[in-house]
Amino acid sequence: MNLKVIAFDADDTLFVNETYFLETEMKFCDLMSDYLSQKGISQELFKVEIDNLKIYGYGIKAYILSMIEAAMKISNNTIPVEVVEKIIEFGKELLDKPIVLLDGVEETLQALHGKYKLVVATKGDLLDQRRKLHNSGLGHYFHHIEVMSDKQEIDYSDLIKRLEIQPEEFFMIGNSLKSDVLPVLAIGGHAIHIPFHTTWEHEKINHKVIHENFSTCEKMTDVLKKIG
Amino acid sequence: MNLKVIAFDADDTLFVNETYFLETEMKFCDLMSDYLSQKGISQELFKVEIDNLKIYGYGIKAYILSMIEAAMKISNNTIPVEVVEKIIEFGKELLDKPIVLLDGVEETLQALHGKYKLVVATKGDLLDQRRKLHNSGLGHYFHHIEVMSDKQEIDYSDLIKRLEIQPEEFFMIGNSLKSDVLPVLAIGGHAIHIPFHTTWEHEKINHKVIHENFSTCEKMTDVLKKIG
Repeated sequence: MNLKVIAFDADDTLFVNETYFLETEMKFCDLMSDYLSQKGISQELFKVEIDNLKIYGYGIKAYILSMIEAAMKISNNTIPVEVVEKIIEFGKELLDKPIVLLDGVEETLQALHGKYKLVVATKGDLLDQRRKLHNSGLGHYFHHIEVMSDKQEIDYSDLIKRLEIQPEEFFMIGNSLKSDVLPVLAIGGHAIHIPFHTTWEHEKINHKVIHENFSTCEKMTDVLKKIG
Repeated sequence: MNLKVIAFDADDTLFVNETYFLETEMKFCDLMSDYLSQKGISQELFKVEIDNLKIYGYGIKAYILSMIEAAMKISNNTIPVEVVEKIIEFGKELLDKPIVLLDGVEETLQALHGKYKLVVATKGDLLDQRRKLHNSGLGHYFHHIEVMSDKQEIDYSDLIKRLEIQPEEFFMIGNSLKSDVLPVLAIGGHAIHIPFHTTWEHEKINHKVIHENFSTCEKMTDVLKKIG
């Protein structure tokens, strides 16, 4: 294997993320509990999020705007504007969450650093992802951060072109089979899946993945057994 | 001059942008005209925008959120939630504006293409900037697009490191002296300023720039007289 670049997903691969979104969703459900059940509110919010994905993309600003839109929809525009204020507050709190590294991340990066070009490849808000990486203290392990508008095959092809390497020289490590594994395998790259205990509905797939360029690791340090 | 990479700012350098923001601002002022004068509303909005810059960054999603916040502030939370709905509508319209190329842009890119590595270096929402470049039909002239969280010296240093070139091999072309010229000159790069008739308040500076690595062009095609 002539490996040149190892790309790491950030959210729920390097540090905790989905946990914070779930916390915020619970607060949003509480805020709207006069109108619908928790399940009903979550479903409405998810629908608005998916509708907005193509125009807003990923990240917290998109999430705030979708919560506001969902609140108006759920209440049939009867919420007072203070509810909108509250939602913006939730959003700003979410942007300010502490960075909690996942087990073995730093140890693994230390071992790989200098041997390969390491990059971060993540979706989300540009500013937010840069800030999280900076606050994580992991920034110096990485050549740079690639904030991607999406993680489809075309986005990985663009990334590989930008990196001026061949697909088989590219290795992706992440917690989402849908975003970090399948498109990378499809264009001829390598991928390792490290599951996180919580996965956003939108990132779920319903089949098993078996491929010669693919493996699963339980924790980040297991990556070192796959890549020397 | 051993020039390797020419970076183009996008908004108001390749295609019209600030004009659309101003249009939206006027609609926002109309919407809020019961509460304050147009000037007062614009000032309040600008204040909120600047306050939010460090957490939201640049781009239309940040702008929508700032309009909502400004509307709540200006009205002392007395607006009905329909006003928020209207603002989100304005934002979505802004995301959907047609791409209007500026004079001579395509001709200039055609002439430089193949001689240098051309990239787009822009602030704003990642997804939005990618879509605009795609819709502009200019995408094939560029090696890739760099969406930057800010355009300070440190951001250009990062960019140059990522491009694996030296600062003196880097040329930046843009309409903002503050964002496209000064930080580039400061780190040893070259810059050309092409003024656009409208400049966002935040991008204005109050002094003249004279530097051996700097020149001003009236229109894009004049760039070809500077860079062969």
